[in-house]
Amino acid sequence: MRILVVNVNTTAAITEAIGEQAAGAASPGTEIVALTPAFGAESVEGNYESYLAAIAVMETVRAYPEPFDAIIQAGYGEHGREGLQELFDVPVVDITEAAASTAQFLGRTYSVVTSLDRTVPLIEERLHVGGLSARCASVRASGMAVLDLERDPDAAVEAIAEQAARAVEDDRAEVICLGCGGMSGLAERVVERTGVPVVDGVTAAVTIAESLVRLGLSTSKVRTYAAPRPKRVLNWPPKLG
Amino acid sequence: MRILVVNVNTTAAITEAIGEQAAGAASPGTEIVALTPAFGAESVEGNYESYLAAIAVMETVRAYPEPFDAIIQAGYGEHGREGLQELFDVPVVDITEAAASTAQFLGRTYSVVTSLDRTVPLIEERLHVGGLSARCASVRASGMAVLDLERDPDAAVEAIAEQAARAVEDDRAEVICLGCGGMSGLAERVVERTGVPVVDGVTAAVTIAESLVRLGLSTSKVRTYAAPRPKRVLNWPPKLG
Amino acid sequence: MRILVVNVNTTAAITEAIGEQAAGAASPGTEIVALTPAFGAESVEGNYESYLAAIAVMETVRAYPEPFDAIIQAGYGEHGREGLQELFDVPVVDITEAAASTAQFLGRTYSVVTSLDRTVPLIEERLHVGGLSARCASVRASGMAVLDLERDPDAAVEAIAEQAARAVEDDRAEVICLGCGGMSGLAERVVERTGVPVVDGVTAAVTIAESLVRLGLSTSKVRTYAAPRPKRVLNWPPKLG
Amino acid sequence: MRILVVNVNTTAAITEAIGEQAAGAASPGTEIVALTPAFGAESVEGNYESYLAAIAVMETVRAYPEPFDAIIQAGYGEHGREGLQELFDVPVVDITEAAASTAQFLGRTYSVVTSLDRTVPLIEERLHVGGLSARCASVRASGMAVLDLERDPDAAVEAIAEQAARAVEDDRAEVICLGCGGMSGLAERVVERTGVPVVDGVTAAVTIAESLVRLGLSTSKVRTYAAPRPKRVLNWPPKLG
Amino acid sequence: MRILVVNVNTTAAITEAIGEQAAGAASPGTEIVALTPAFGAESVEGNYESYLAAIAVMETVRAYPEPFDAIIQAGYGEHGREGLQELFDVPVVDITEAAASTAQFLGRTYSVVTSLDRTVPLIEERLHVGGLSARCASVRASGMAVLDLERDPDAAVEAIAEQAARAVEDDRAEVICLGCGGMSGLAERVVERTGVPVVDGVTAAVTIAESLVRLGLSTSKVRTYAAPRPKRVLNWPPKLG
Amino acid sequence: MRILVVNVNTTAAITEAIGEQAAGAASPGTEIVALTPAFGAESVEGNYESYLAAIAVMETVRAYPEPFDAIIQAGYGEHGREGLQELFDVPVVDITEAAASTAQFLGRTYSVVTSLDRTVPLIEERLHVGGLSARCASVRASGMAVLDLERDPDAAVEAIAEQAARAVEDDRAEVICLGCGGMSGLAERVVERTGVPVVDGVTAAVTIAESLVRLGLSTSKVRTYAAPRPKRVLNWPPKLG
Repeated sequence: MRILVVNVNTTAAITEAIGEQAAGAASPGTEIVALTPAFGAESVEGNYESYLAAIAVMETVRAYPEPFDAIIQAGYGEHGREGLQELFDVPVVDITEAAASTAQFLGRTYSVVTSLDRTVPLIEERLHVGGLSARCASVRASGMAVLDLERDPDAAVEAIAEQAARAVEDDRAEVICLGCGGMSGLAERVVERTGVPVVDGVTAAVTIAESLVRLGLSTSKVRTYAAPRPKRVLNWPPKLG
Repeated sequence: MRILVVNVNTTAAITEAIGEQAAGAASPGTEIVALTPAFGAESVEGNYESYLAAIAVMETVRAYPEPFDAIIQAGYGEHGREGLQELFDVPVVDITEAAASTAQFLGRTYSVVTSLDRTVPLIEERLHVGGLSARCASVRASGMAVLDLERDPDAAVEAIAEQAARAVEDDRAEVICLGCGGMSGLAERVVERTGVPVVDGVTAAVTIAESLVRLGLSTSKVRTYAAPRPKRVLNWPPKLG
Repeated sequence: MRILVVNVNTTAAITEAIGEQAAGAASPGTEIVALTPAFGAESVEGNYESYLAAIAVMETVRAYPEPFDAIIQAGYGEHGREGLQELFDVPVVDITEAAASTAQFLGRTYSVVTSLDRTVPLIEERLHVGGLSARCASVRASGMAVLDLERDPDAAVEAIAEQAARAVEDDRAEVICLGCGGMSGLAERVVERTGVPVVDGVTAAVTIAESLVRLGLSTSKVRTYAAPRPKRVLNWPPKLG
Repeated sequence: MRILVVNVNTTAAITEAIGEQAAGAASPGTEIVALTPAFGAESVEGNYESYLAAIAVMETVRAYPEPFDAIIQAGYGEHGREGLQELFDVPVVDITEAAASTAQFLGRTYSVVTSLDRTVPLIEERLHVGGLSARCASVRASGMAVLDLERDPDAAVEAIAEQAARAVEDDRAEVICLGCGGMSGLAERVVERTGVPVVDGVTAAVTIAESLVRLGLSTSKVRTYAAPRPKRVLNWPPKLG
Repeated sequence: MRILVVNVNTTAAITEAIGEQAAGAASPGTEIVALTPAFGAESVEGNYESYLAAIAVMETVRAYPEPFDAIIQAGYGEHGREGLQELFDVPVVDITEAAASTAQFLGRTYSVVTSLDRTVPLIEERLHVGGLSARCASVRASGMAVLDLERDPDAAVEAIAEQAARAVEDDRAEVICLGCGGMSGLAERVVERTGVPVVDGVTAAVTIAESLVRLGLSTSKVRTYAAPRPKRVLNWPPKLG
Repeated sequence: MRILVVNVNTTAAITEAIGEQAAGAASPGTEIVALTPAFGAESVEGNYESYLAAIAVMETVRAYPEPFDAIIQAGYGEHGREGLQELFDVPVVDITEAAASTAQFLGRTYSVVTSLDRTVPLIEERLHVGGLSARCASVRASGMAVLDLERDPDAAVEAIAEQAARAVEDDRAEVICLGCGGMSGLAERVVERTGVPVVDGVTAAVTIAESLVRLGLSTSKVRTYAAPRPKRVLNWPPKLG
């Protein structure tokens, strides 16, 4: 089984980290292919960048030349999952939804801890679209930008653990979803600080994608995610480079 | 005052019709500039096309060389309004939200009648994001594709009036929002058939945009719609043609 | 176009202030007529006074001898808008709903800052009835009574600005609606303190009423707001004076 | 214990019927006093009439010269209960809320069957304000006006039983609340037709009012229902006759 | 009229206290029979114990040899009320729902103050199932275990009054429901501290059960609470002792 | 890895069918152990039987002598999952929640088709408790009792396929969850009839349980699902046989 894990930003180091994380959770026999979009922002922290990423992810998968069995969109709180479901027949898993869906099996409520305050609304909307808001205790921001997470992982881990602890104590969260990239030691530190299970979206998404493939299930094409109707599309996709 | 009214599809005839409709509702002294996106689908009827339109509309406005006072996104149930609000300082009005917001001043409940069944979920999501779902009685599809509306306006008017009548009788709607383009005689026919007020999104959006400008109000930049942070954006915007 | 702007209390000085505010927002050619109810409380700060105001406003408009094109009910969080919609054919705009509806075009969430704590529930109910609760972050009270606002405007402005700042910081509001009368400098002070757009209900209502008239739209009479059925009404309206 | 049961319309025959119904449900030692408002419509079937009734009921209770222990507002889906709670210290029970609250102890869901279609929204709003919507399966109209119920009780009973049966079968109601006056045999006929418990608002309200008095409980005066603040009220109450 | 009041734990002293409380609220002619389950935990503070109590209460009522007119399940936030409704024809009243339903007649919002933090979710779920969440301001825990309430009533009263005061001030509750056993002086102390009405579930349930019996109303058997279908039940009920 | 799959009824043939279905979905290296409760009803179709099953399942797992890695509660819409989470440290997966959670990755909305009408409310409550209601289009009953499904599978398949088709057409479901036992050919027939993905709760639960174990995740013990406090439990568990 081959699963495409598509980063939403154009920073190759992040794609690589995501790919390693995904591979670590994959079953024997599952090949993880991590892809970087051919255009877009070096980090995605707002609606404009997220809409751009949505389209970039779709075109990146469209350009992938080999067959594949499932797609994971590896951005937290991003636009675009519905478009992938229209364009392809294989299952599509968004990591925000994968994390929340997994968290719901572990505790009565969960919170998400993310990077910047401005991405909180994007995550809230994605959880709503996913039908996963009812048990969400809160979405909290650590105040660290995506690229800062890479630059100063120690400070990032501390800021995130602090917000996780407040989610458990003040917002009554019983599980924490990490809404940010794969820093080494992050999950361990949050578990240690809060005593609650910590869910990572990428690894959760890998197990869900594998499960759907094994069960022979894929996207319903009956209405919302039917393939686009044949029509003229002007000046698209763009010629890059 | 200059208001940009941006079509979401690349069919120039539709842009022209929208522009005329908008101009008809504008106050003396308001200049309406109707724009067609430089790339994208000839009609927008699903998530992939809508995400593509979202980005195309943003780039089209970015490329517009003159100053302007407000932006109207003239597509029903489309993605992208939040991105425009990040990129620009002037007010941004989505026609789906403009119609619903106006309808709420006219009756206790409203229904939207749109083109294809597959666009119903997109409209429902947009109304949710806009906080305008509570008084929405239903979103109904006429079964006519966007371009069919142009090709056989008589059949389209009949199919839309039929769904409007069912919304009033079965779903207890008290106002109808037209979720499709500017066919001549459409609103009149629906009023005649149902006896309830009929709201057109484009004209409603023009009056709202003018009002916001006159009141000196514009998008809050404090959190969700703050300008994108300065960063490297790879291979974008594309070179077209 | 003539728009009736009806105060809900019997304090003529407040009627005058509301009238000036409304006139300042009106288009050339719009005549604003500000009316004081013939009976009722000198300020409206609770359910009994608000129910009384509801009826007083309706009778006041009924007694107005000239033709008019729209009605604005200029009280924050008051009962009665639905009754006006039954009695008259022209559009009716409630300032609580006008402010919230306008705020939703400016930010993802809004808060209302009002006078006394006891009027908070009235405003919350009015927003619910208006279908405008989903994006309401909070309704906050400054603790100043309506007539105190007139007597000590400096203290009032400070108390209101303080609550507005807390709404933006603690409740994540991105827009502030002013749920209290027209003190000079209030909006400016709140903008200065919070950095977010500030919406005044009276001016917002004027632009909405004008827009509905220009678009040829009025109240749906199909069900909820149908004219009262002909019947015997005992001892009403009362003989005053 | 003395309980005031206040009709909302000015038809004395209806007041008398309500009073008899209430007396039939009262405990030994409870005196039921049925009151007709001194002004208002002969039947209440819409917002204008209901707002007028709200004020008329308040003034009627205010003018009652003897002490009393509780107030029942005996109109279905009417405005005003909150005002009574402000003006008086004794418990206030609205029959719409009494019926729904009682029905919730009898089945998982309930429906209300009322007179005219135009009163459905009023009942829905009252149930919302009362926090009693979650288990409401539907509010259905029989199409009979209030005074028609008096004039042709056989047809009324049949029309109401028909809607009750549809509520049970189509809307999955498990209890029926009768949202209309006390026709002889009505409850029996609906029980016979549907096989589900039938709740009458007036009798339910009597038992609730008695219970509150016996438990020594009354309206909370801490915020929403605090007594009106002392202030000047102009031209009110009116001089009648 | 005979009402069974069934404790959910196996501590006889608590059964006795509940029985006295119930008897104090009963009308002349009502016999209160307080029952202790034949198996289960000495206090119920979590899901396992509550599910066990649910079954124990049902079997305890099944084993009761005399006729009876109503059943009160006297545990706060416990499972099982729906099962009792299936097994018996007489009305069943849960004290959590009785308290909330009564509180809604007294103030716009209510809070529940209970024993341990871990029982908060159970109460929240029960209020949801009862359709009584909309006006619930909060469920707060005093941190005192059920048996501690018996052992150190003074400290318990203080801890509960403290949370009640915070509910009124911070959560805007206007009524307090006591979600814990009958300590002498508790209600008085909370009224004194907060100034709001305080509702006790057991006494509220007695008046509701009496009212349903007097009105001739009982559980709807049309769907959810129909009697169990005849079938083989293995090894149940167990032989005790 | 060993997963316990616990039937909720005492019919051994159903336990066997569930076990085979589970084994068919398990990864190599996963051992499925199917258990029948030691007491309870031969089929579970209502609240009393479901509460009894809840306790029976808990005691059955408690009595299981070997170590295990996860528990699946294999009944549709049953009580008890929260109790298992308190009693054990390993992950607990309810099949109702597993099916819905899986369906949400496949389509915008899903419907459940179950056996008898009386179990619909139980499934709706379980989906609510699981935070999985928002995308649930409907829960429909085929009218076939659980044991009838075994006796006349052809009629059962036809009745279920019919309701599935109506869910897709009338309720706009895009995925079907089968809320009833493992009849051969059922899923295939429903896919064939409706063209939408069909999710079986048992197989979905197996993949979720395996995923949680592989990811090293288990139930949060911080609040709702903390182990029961040490205390005296009277006469329990019962001596059977």
